[in-house]
Amino acid sequence: MRSSDDDLLAANGQFYAAFAAGDFVAMEALWAERETVTCLHPGWTGLQGRDAVLASWRGILRQPSGVVVRDEIAVMLGEEAGMVVCTEALGEVELAATNVFVREAGEWRMLHHHAGLIARRGEDDDDEDEPEDEQLLN
Amino acid sequence: MRSSDDDLLAANGQFYAAFAAGDFVAMEALWAERETVTCLHPGWTGLQGRDAVLASWRGILRQPSGVVVRDEIAVMLGEEAGMVVCTEALGEVELAATNVFVREAGEWRMLHHHAGLIARRGEDDDDEDEPEDEQLLN
Repeated sequence: MRSSDDDLLAANGQFYAAFAAGDFVAMEALWAERETVTCLHPGWTGLQGRDAVLASWRGILRQPSGVVVRDEIAVMLGEEAGMVVCTEALGEVELAATNVFVREAGEWRMLHHHAGLIARRGEDDDDEDEPEDEQLLN
Repeated sequence: MRSSDDDLLAANGQFYAAFAAGDFVAMEALWAERETVTCLHPGWTGLQGRDAVLASWRGILRQPSGVVVRDEIAVMLGEEAGMVVCTEALGEVELAATNVFVREAGEWRMLHHHAGLIARRGEDDDDEDEPEDEQLLN
């Protein structure tokens, strides 16, 4: 029997499968059916509402991205909500992501996606083995 | 009587008051007392666990930032968790932020903070009145 964490990670995996393949139909089905959905794409101002968020994904998914997800951390937020923090690799670019899900009719649906740039490989080869935080903390 | 949304926004305001003033004691008190806290600072790899997250803030809060928060959207995630999506202005830099809170002993405490760069004013003055999304959608 799968735990809630497993189901939450599976939903997160479905999000990245749709994103990687450029599958808008799967992406649309994954987002929650409520107007409080929000999305913070890297470098963009925030999007609010299902129509605005899905319009953004329709543009992004015109072509497969080949995004790869890793380092997932799943955190339950009560019984009906959960969050996955993870890393996205898009070619040479790495992003940190926060994905918030809610249960709708028993299924995990995405309520919020936030992705932001960590680093571009090749631009800072001299310190790519060191965590970025050390540069600010020291 | 204050609604849960008001309380959630008040906690979010306390976070930015501590961040603006460089008040580590207030920041430490605001973070949840559990090991599943996570933090994604702009450009950094992810931090997990209360010690790692608070160590990062101890460094950041060595001086007041003067950060200003605006455009807050509060979303309840059941009764015991909630999220605030907002914009941070740090001088000439604007960031999009996701802040997730949980109730501990009746108080909203921060479980997750994620901030990422939107734009630096002055670097792209020619289109600062246009949403960033249009650049990718068109």
